[in-house]
Amino acid sequence: MVNVAILGFGTVGSGVAEVLTGHESSIERKAGGLIRLKYILDVRDFPDSPFADRFVKDFSVIEKDPEVDIVVETIGGASIALDFTRRALEAGKSVVTSNKELVATRGYELTQLAREKGVCYLFEASVGGGIPIIRPLSQCLAANEILEIYGILNGTTNYILTRMIRAGLTFDAALKEAQDNGYAERDPSADVEGHDACRKICILADIAFGRHISPDQVPTQGITRVTLADVDYAESAGKKIKLLGRAIHRADGRVCAYVAPHLVDQSDPLAGVEDVFNAISVRGDAIGDVMFYGRGAGKLPTASAVVADVIDVARNMGRRKALSWEPGGADAACGTGELSSCWYVRAAATADELRTRFPGCKLLARRESGGVESACITEGGLTQAQLEEKLAGLSVSNTLRVLD
Amino acid sequence: MVNVAILGFGTVGSGVAEVLTGHESSIERKAGGLIRLKYILDVRDFPDSPFADRFVKDFSVIEKDPEVDIVVETIGGASIALDFTRRALEAGKSVVTSNKELVATRGYELTQLAREKGVCYLFEASVGGGIPIIRPLSQCLAANEILEIYGILNGTTNYILTRMIRAGLTFDAALKEAQDNGYAERDPSADVEGHDACRKICILADIAFGRHISPDQVPTQGITRVTLADVDYAESAGKKIKLLGRAIHRADGRVCAYVAPHLVDQSDPLAGVEDVFNAISVRGDAIGDVMFYGRGAGKLPTASAVVADVIDVARNMGRRKALSWEPGGADAACGTGELSSCWYVRAAATADELRTRFPGCKLLARRESGGVESACITEGGLTQAQLEEKLAGLSVSNTLRVLD
Repeated sequence: MVNVAILGFGTVGSGVAEVLTGHESSIERKAGGLIRLKYILDVRDFPDSPFADRFVKDFSVIEKDPEVDIVVETIGGASIALDFTRRALEAGKSVVTSNKELVATRGYELTQLAREKGVCYLFEASVGGGIPIIRPLSQCLAANEILEIYGILNGTTNYILTRMIRAGLTFDAALKEAQDNGYAERDPSADVEGHDACRKICILADIAFGRHISPDQVPTQGITRVTLADVDYAESAGKKIKLLGRAIHRADGRVCAYVAPHLVDQSDPLAGVEDVFNAISVRGDAIGDVMFYGRGAGKLPTASAVVADVIDVARNMGRRKALSWEPGGADAACGTGELSSCWYVRAAATADELRTRFPGCKLLARRESGGVESACITEGGLTQAQLEEKLAGLSVSNTLRVLD
Repeated sequence: MVNVAILGFGTVGSGVAEVLTGHESSIERKAGGLIRLKYILDVRDFPDSPFADRFVKDFSVIEKDPEVDIVVETIGGASIALDFTRRALEAGKSVVTSNKELVATRGYELTQLAREKGVCYLFEASVGGGIPIIRPLSQCLAANEILEIYGILNGTTNYILTRMIRAGLTFDAALKEAQDNGYAERDPSADVEGHDACRKICILADIAFGRHISPDQVPTQGITRVTLADVDYAESAGKKIKLLGRAIHRADGRVCAYVAPHLVDQSDPLAGVEDVFNAISVRGDAIGDVMFYGRGAGKLPTASAVVADVIDVARNMGRRKALSWEPGGADAACGTGELSSCWYVRAAATADELRTRFPGCKLLARRESGGVESACITEGGLTQAQLEEKLAGLSVSNTLRVLD
């Protein structure tokens, strides 16, 4: 029998308790033995919970109980969660988590600690909610050199963009709707500013390219500047605006990782990813492109990914799962400075002015346009610096990269 | 060091040799030790191959060499491949394969034999080419009860349908183009009659639902009867025709598995899967829908999946990977008799005649229609028997299920 303690009885933590106990017999078969939920740590009281007898308030009870094999950390954040994760690993317990902030910022250190202690630190649920991505990336694609990973990593912003595109809502109206539906937090900044997607692309880059990429090395732009005008112009070019996290492995070994809204062609599978769904594309030298698609958040999808990790640890008790990467450093990441792409440009200018600055560009038409405004898609690749040089003196409303 | 022998130096076998040797150092790092390609078995001579010194013609050389840990079977078919696979497992060697025919028909017996011998029998490459699906299904989704699996499992037929839809080619012209491009065999029947997709849906059902489903229990219909008229009518309803393999877990434990062309709504992610790409959707009770997308065939994609299995075996030498399921039987599968769906009906009839037989149906219009012909999509679900009853006496051109 394997004993589990859950830290934090919020959305994901309570989902883990539900999945673990609701599928007990099939999980026992797959794990090769019973998995018992022994403790739940939370500062709050849950007298009416079916798990009321398992609650504890003092982490040291769990830390000191030699029966506890696996600690599920669903507290979130990088302060208490970091302390408890370290102490659990130090005590020789495996840790499974959905905490993307902690993995993105401290993953290197925590996987190292897990290795030293001969236990596991697994985090399938930290990216893409329930979508299997960490294990496929580290195992199924192991025969590939990964060239690039990119995807729609945040369901909240994808929902907002979908509502802007489909229903013509403004950003503010779509955000409010997302909040009303429980898809966005009261303070939506982690989502709409791109920080959540940034953490996830860091974790994917760590696994895919084998060196630690820190969120502060990743230029991050959210969707707050995307307007209905941009949505309209993009549509006229057969494209949709999607917030992408991207990490590209450069020939010199550095990783170019960033988060920004992109124009994506409607024939691209990513363009069909709507609402709160996520999708992650991986390009390998042998396999070409593969894509993983599903619900990127939500109580039960995320819990099911956590429990899959728990089953994996239980099935392999006493064996470390070798998920690790090298330390990072200033030379690991290279930002976006050298990255060329075609650009979407919208400016308070005439079509002729844009054409003069961007010879051969594709001018875009909008259903209804107000004042002197034009938009185009540049021909040929430009770096951001090259673009800005060409835009000098122009009153620019927005610029966005076009996914090639 | 782990020693590998490849059986069959065809497209996949030569790809495995290429990937194994081309990525030697990164594979060594991931596998935790060197993986050496010791033998290649083929009846033909390859004097100019860089692997010329490793060829053998007698399987017993491999069978009797205690240094060989892993046998990669890429012969195909279910005769010699079965014999060699059994003998390799009996000799205590793990076997990795891309052979869907063998896994679909003999997988139960061979996984049992592997269990008895304490070795592995892995076949990630047998479904979806390089797309990770077997491992995600058996591990990452382990906390789910799988309710249904369906997908585009055959690249050749998807290419043909894509060319019919996009370029207006007839079936025969699209098939010829696929053959000219090397996407279809000279004898295309295994693809266009649906047998290839049938084998793959059997393997997926085995893993997902835990009981052996045999290809002869799976009603299988290919795409040879799909015409441009069907493509046109489907388009007018906002749908695309896709050949799907489906396996549905029924409440009584039986599995309803079949292969047939379906009308798929253009908003469904599967509708965007074009050309030779494959996509597999899995519906779990916790995760909802997840989809896996990529190249379902081809030398290097398939080889990369084989090599990932080789790495997995090498990393876990001496440990059996528990991939197995229960035996099947007549009560395991239930065909399509009880399966209700909406139907697309095309018949030599007037719109009024169709409307009389299918009250509330959606009549479809075609760009150019010849003679008296009408088509509709029925309202509400009908089993095949119920449909046929309503069609009695009508001159029916085609009927296809509509994916709900």
